[in-house]
Amino acid sequence: MDFTQFYYPDRFIGSIEDYEKADIVILGAPMDYTVSYKAGSREGAQSVRPASWAMETYSSRLDRDLEELKYFDLGDLVLNMGHAEHSCNIIENAISQILEDKKIPFTYGGEHLITWPIIKAFHEKYPDLVLIQLDAHADLREEFFGEAYSHATVMRKCAELIGPDNLFQVGIRSGPREEFEYGKKYTHFYPYRLEGAIEDINAFCKGKPVYITIDIDVLDPAYAPGTGTLEPNGVTSRELFDFFYSLKLDQVVGIDVVEISPYHDLSRMTSVMGCNLFRELALKFF
Amino acid sequence: MDFTQFYYPDRFIGSIEDYEKADIVILGAPMDYTVSYKAGSREGAQSVRPASWAMETYSSRLDRDLEELKYFDLGDLVLNMGHAEHSCNIIENAISQILEDKKIPFTYGGEHLITWPIIKAFHEKYPDLVLIQLDAHADLREEFFGEAYSHATVMRKCAELIGPDNLFQVGIRSGPREEFEYGKKYTHFYPYRLEGAIEDINAFCKGKPVYITIDIDVLDPAYAPGTGTLEPNGVTSRELFDFFYSLKLDQVVGIDVVEISPYHDLSRMTSVMGCNLFRELALKFF
Amino acid sequence: MDFTQFYYPDRFIGSIEDYEKADIVILGAPMDYTVSYKAGSREGAQSVRPASWAMETYSSRLDRDLEELKYFDLGDLVLNMGHAEHSCNIIENAISQILEDKKIPFTYGGEHLITWPIIKAFHEKYPDLVLIQLDAHADLREEFFGEAYSHATVMRKCAELIGPDNLFQVGIRSGPREEFEYGKKYTHFYPYRLEGAIEDINAFCKGKPVYITIDIDVLDPAYAPGTGTLEPNGVTSRELFDFFYSLKLDQVVGIDVVEISPYHDLSRMTSVMGCNLFRELALKFF
Amino acid sequence: MDFTQFYYPDRFIGSIEDYEKADIVILGAPMDYTVSYKAGSREGAQSVRPASWAMETYSSRLDRDLEELKYFDLGDLVLNMGHAEHSCNIIENAISQILEDKKIPFTYGGEHLITWPIIKAFHEKYPDLVLIQLDAHADLREEFFGEAYSHATVMRKCAELIGPDNLFQVGIRSGPREEFEYGKKYTHFYPYRLEGAIEDINAFCKGKPVYITIDIDVLDPAYAPGTGTLEPNGVTSRELFDFFYSLKLDQVVGIDVVEISPYHDLSRMTSVMGCNLFRELALKFF
Amino acid sequence: MDFTQFYYPDRFIGSIEDYEKADIVILGAPMDYTVSYKAGSREGAQSVRPASWAMETYSSRLDRDLEELKYFDLGDLVLNMGHAEHSCNIIENAISQILEDKKIPFTYGGEHLITWPIIKAFHEKYPDLVLIQLDAHADLREEFFGEAYSHATVMRKCAELIGPDNLFQVGIRSGPREEFEYGKKYTHFYPYRLEGAIEDINAFCKGKPVYITIDIDVLDPAYAPGTGTLEPNGVTSRELFDFFYSLKLDQVVGIDVVEISPYHDLSRMTSVMGCNLFRELALKFF
Amino acid sequence: MDFTQFYYPDRFIGSIEDYEKADIVILGAPMDYTVSYKAGSREGAQSVRPASWAMETYSSRLDRDLEELKYFDLGDLVLNMGHAEHSCNIIENAISQILEDKKIPFTYGGEHLITWPIIKAFHEKYPDLVLIQLDAHADLREEFFGEAYSHATVMRKCAELIGPDNLFQVGIRSGPREEFEYGKKYTHFYPYRLEGAIEDINAFCKGKPVYITIDIDVLDPAYAPGTGTLEPNGVTSRELFDFFYSLKLDQVVGIDVVEISPYHDLSRMTSVMGCNLFRELALKFF
Repeated sequence: MDFTQFYYPDRFIGSIEDYEKADIVILGAPMDYTVSYKAGSREGAQSVRPASWAMETYSSRLDRDLEELKYFDLGDLVLNMGHAEHSCNIIENAISQILEDKKIPFTYGGEHLITWPIIKAFHEKYPDLVLIQLDAHADLREEFFGEAYSHATVMRKCAELIGPDNLFQVGIRSGPREEFEYGKKYTHFYPYRLEGAIEDINAFCKGKPVYITIDIDVLDPAYAPGTGTLEPNGVTSRELFDFFYSLKLDQVVGIDVVEISPYHDLSRMTSVMGCNLFRELALKFF
Repeated sequence: MDFTQFYYPDRFIGSIEDYEKADIVILGAPMDYTVSYKAGSREGAQSVRPASWAMETYSSRLDRDLEELKYFDLGDLVLNMGHAEHSCNIIENAISQILEDKKIPFTYGGEHLITWPIIKAFHEKYPDLVLIQLDAHADLREEFFGEAYSHATVMRKCAELIGPDNLFQVGIRSGPREEFEYGKKYTHFYPYRLEGAIEDINAFCKGKPVYITIDIDVLDPAYAPGTGTLEPNGVTSRELFDFFYSLKLDQVVGIDVVEISPYHDLSRMTSVMGCNLFRELALKFF
Repeated sequence: MDFTQFYYPDRFIGSIEDYEKADIVILGAPMDYTVSYKAGSREGAQSVRPASWAMETYSSRLDRDLEELKYFDLGDLVLNMGHAEHSCNIIENAISQILEDKKIPFTYGGEHLITWPIIKAFHEKYPDLVLIQLDAHADLREEFFGEAYSHATVMRKCAELIGPDNLFQVGIRSGPREEFEYGKKYTHFYPYRLEGAIEDINAFCKGKPVYITIDIDVLDPAYAPGTGTLEPNGVTSRELFDFFYSLKLDQVVGIDVVEISPYHDLSRMTSVMGCNLFRELALKFF
Repeated sequence: MDFTQFYYPDRFIGSIEDYEKADIVILGAPMDYTVSYKAGSREGAQSVRPASWAMETYSSRLDRDLEELKYFDLGDLVLNMGHAEHSCNIIENAISQILEDKKIPFTYGGEHLITWPIIKAFHEKYPDLVLIQLDAHADLREEFFGEAYSHATVMRKCAELIGPDNLFQVGIRSGPREEFEYGKKYTHFYPYRLEGAIEDINAFCKGKPVYITIDIDVLDPAYAPGTGTLEPNGVTSRELFDFFYSLKLDQVVGIDVVEISPYHDLSRMTSVMGCNLFRELALKFF
Repeated sequence: MDFTQFYYPDRFIGSIEDYEKADIVILGAPMDYTVSYKAGSREGAQSVRPASWAMETYSSRLDRDLEELKYFDLGDLVLNMGHAEHSCNIIENAISQILEDKKIPFTYGGEHLITWPIIKAFHEKYPDLVLIQLDAHADLREEFFGEAYSHATVMRKCAELIGPDNLFQVGIRSGPREEFEYGKKYTHFYPYRLEGAIEDINAFCKGKPVYITIDIDVLDPAYAPGTGTLEPNGVTSRELFDFFYSLKLDQVVGIDVVEISPYHDLSRMTSVMGCNLFRELALKFF
Repeated sequence: MDFTQFYYPDRFIGSIEDYEKADIVILGAPMDYTVSYKAGSREGAQSVRPASWAMETYSSRLDRDLEELKYFDLGDLVLNMGHAEHSCNIIENAISQILEDKKIPFTYGGEHLITWPIIKAFHEKYPDLVLIQLDAHADLREEFFGEAYSHATVMRKCAELIGPDNLFQVGIRSGPREEFEYGKKYTHFYPYRLEGAIEDINAFCKGKPVYITIDIDVLDPAYAPGTGTLEPNGVTSRELFDFFYSLKLDQVVGIDVVEISPYHDLSRMTSVMGCNLFRELALKFF
């Protein structure tokens, strides 16, 4: 059988067949149990993959083509539905294994809580990790509805692990007063807009390993309607891409894109944004 | 201010203002963390309430009117998002309190797991409880994705608590072989159709306290598209209502309707079905 | 220009170019102001026309083809948005004119209130008119939210005009007790199902002019999700068509199909049903 | 029963239990009969309330929290469906009562016509009222489809009542030539963009009672797809919020947000915008 | 890396990793160029695969489990978008190769035209092939909009190739008079309902190789809203499954399911039906 | 019959009754067979017409009213479904006839391939034609999925016919490297943004016949979600309109707007944009 005449719309476009040969690994972490409003991000990665088949592999802005990269699409993790802590353990183990295999993980959520086990795994390997978070919400609560494992606490846990001084929070525009106070006091905190953060990030990250986490709700709902908690007055897609084009980072060691929830997005523009973020960021930083 | 010129589309139509005076209590249990496919049933109760305002309070089949009943709408429980066990505890406590207050709870899910804490509370009060389950799925697994607290294990847990001989499972049409074998061996098991169960139920339940749990997916997806796990070849709405009209039960002590998930149902016909089930069942049995 | 190489997808398929030559006239009455729940039926006729282009003009059941009929599509009436009484006057005048021109009107709603001005115009011409109503609701209220002009009062007004003894109400399954009492007492009242009415109708209507009004919600929501007020436990499409195939009517003088509301029906199956009703009824009765 | 463990997802988040103690009153006016294109705004207020539960009560821009305000959610008015004039009377009476009770009404439409009875009530109490209108349409017609009571005539009626010199029309980008001529000649008219109006408004309104009416279609459809009449080339959400942050008004006496129509907005971003407008405007002006 | 902890949600559940070891092959043929009404069936196979992950692999009716079968999911064919004839060649070649490899193809459309190249490949191998078609439409036109390659001509072409006496057409309810005349005259023609055909099929097919093609629109739109051309008054899902359970066929050599078009089916019930058809038919016939 | 009391929502608002008297002709070319991702643009023109009835005929920016123009709406062409080449011939012939009749065609797609037969017809009449393309994609491939007739090759074919030096490509942001290289080398190529092109176009086009083709995906998906291939990081509606307001063209001889695909756009904002483009461009250039 000539298998090349077939394609899997479920596999990210351009992904190679052999895990061993890959430098980058795409995976999905379909957890959405702790979100407080609309569920659905468990289908985030699933919705990004078929959308990728309508995307050109060439980036005209960067004049590079995904064909120049070697990435493998692992599929979605099998998680313990409904148990956040157990699911976090599975995610942490998978990321640890990928790092051990000397590959760069690019993870699609799921909800933002998945970033917590990812950062735990990264911090093991990179004790001086810098974390850049693009997000409408600071996610700095100490607990949420009585639970420590929550999409609303994830950055507090990360900050406490890597040190809040290693956390850049960009685009934040929603949260309780306590979170804004914590952010302004302890983290690198750039509310509302993205531009102001660029120079600081470029200066601070020189020579350091950097992890980027993108909550898709950093975008205005007009540009990303498919997410669980819509926050008006966000950034435009142009501002988001221009932000990334302006970054100068020596060593990006991992990326995730979370909170894509396709149920509420008939056009699937949010999923399309998700796969474009892979192309532009992978071609820029890897 | 003349408050009667206003209405709350969020409050079930016809509900009274005073909890103390109510015989029946409507409440929502917005848990959907353990579902394996599509989330969204956390908005089940929320979607039923506004739909109730388009429903007549009079049932022509039963020639009774909801005005003859006294029911109070408690709203939705505040749950620990993402933690099934903790949420179950909250539900159990609330139901226990309602039972202590000598009221009949009518609970809207949420996912089917909510029936577990409800039955725990009921079994305390009614040790000889009979449980009638209408469902596409037996939900008799011992564990699911490694978790004991799951929508797929809920009836196994209930069966073990009240004794499988007190469990009627009606309309079941999907599940692994083990569940069908368990059901056929231990519970009153009536797969695929509803009619066959009527006489047996009427005979068995004479004089006993009965709880009814309705997973909306017992209906064919044509009649209830708004649910998490669609199963073709289900029963029609006419068969479902005729089943209830034929039941002769001395003492129905509680009812729940679960797995209404409005995201995927543009017409909201599943939510409309949900509020009609309250009217017909409350007028028939209470 | 060879105009035959073009088509208007929103003109009913097969409609002729010349009003004068037509025996039948299709028109839309886009009024939906008095509906109590979901608006949207103003787009009923608009949604039926494009759907007609996917419909065969041949009816295999009746072995007749729409090509054998001459019908003209007048478009939608320009109504006084938001003023029910003024809009009713416009509808009545238009129907009167069509009747004066010796043509048969086939009207798409809009809400059910449009049937009131239509029947007023028909009653002028046919004092012995028989009215057959297929509907989930009796629409026999004397007033509704303080208004006499309402979708919920329309059949009461018609009954009082033509005499309740000339009104057949078939498929009724929802309404307050008063409406059921009025119906059972005064009109020919066939609740829930259609079959029982056939022989009575055939006997009663012999030699009489008959008008048929179909509220699409007589169908179960599974078969017609695109309507304003969904009522579970309705009739199937097969039952509806078989009802019409069994009728033997000497003189059907007009028909309307109301309450098609396409907003909530992504597949547009309700609009497709609407245009199939034209084909089958026009070929059966005209 | 411990009622604090329950919440009503359709009651505006943070609203207090006692009308008497409230300074601000939220109410819905579910009228959409006179709209010329797509109906549906009758569900505007209903859709805003559940959306409010995903909104933080803290505004980081204003560094204030809704907890600092006392507001009561009255629910939706019971209106005479389909009769615009009667419904307007009901609205006017309710607003008059609220003003008499010395509370500030924050009204969600419904269509824009609701602003007419509101302004009538306000003008009684505040003869020198200034009205600031943000809107894509001037709504300055003298009549519309033969009716004086119409969403398209509402501002003409208001202008004639309070004097066109007391009307600021901002963001207008659509209408017949006559409306633009009237606006340019008689009212304070700022078409297309918002910025230009700020200084004039701040100067003019010094010491005066000001009412703000926001037709959500002032926003570009990208930011507010859920409305009846989409007008391309509108303002962005950032421009809208920045406009309000720049206003310096001594005495805002009431606000309404109209034409939110959730049917056509799967993500409900327009309803989310609606509840954010309450938070930002109430915290800014009350 | 332990790959078993991941899954591809868009690979059919239970499919094995090695083409060589498979007895059955699932593939998609994403062609929808010639459909006359709504396009979208190109995403038919894509939508069935993720839906399969919510399906039990065990069939309680047949008491068999998909684990007992060995099937490989080839993915979707890469077709020449917009060129029906070239695409048909690709499909024919792929099916021929699968047959040469002694495997049974189970193909998801795409539109019904894909059955033409499939039957061409099968007829090469099985000159006495019997074709059973379940469909709302006879698809017996000689040409359609001037084109011979069309979803409306596919069964005419097949009939002429294998002989109309080897074609069973079941459930047909829509088409021009010519098609019904041809069908009644030349093929085994069972319009409207399924039951009547069973005995004839069982008798005729004894010992013969049989191919089954299912146009999902044989179902009533209530049961399969996600298809290009909705035809009211179809069969129910129960009737469809019971039809298959009653067939006694010695040698089913291939199956296709066509015209699933997920765009217009928010709940995806049509795609769920599609994957259930694989389970029940594969377990019954293979 | 007084026909003025009716309107056809299917006919573009304001279109006149007599083809002969028209200066401008609106027509639809419902071809979408060669699109590689989501089909649906065959309903583009169909969706624009009813949307036009919610649009004012007056443009306040241009201070002109559509009443000043004479345009006729021809409806949609009857095309050979599924055969791109044959359909192109039909389109070319229709456009040639319109040009022969000395009228200006304004064509709604359909997919972008329709521009190829249009330009062929125009080039016959205007050998020095300048083509201005607004688009996310260059569409400069030599072939696509093995086919020369494709939405992805259309501009290459046009460039080769009229000379690449007569082609302005504005807003291009997606495509393979080869297309960007060709564009930069041979055509007037203005990627990403629109502003830069204005002066060059105004200078170059002086005195020349100009055709404008607008692929709606030049807009960011936030502003035009209803299209087949979404490309993030596009232009805003304000930028698009301002671009046109700044053009100074002596002789615009024809315009098309393509790739509006209403299926995926619940609010229909893309169709509304489509009819606004007619108003603004016709009033600006005709």
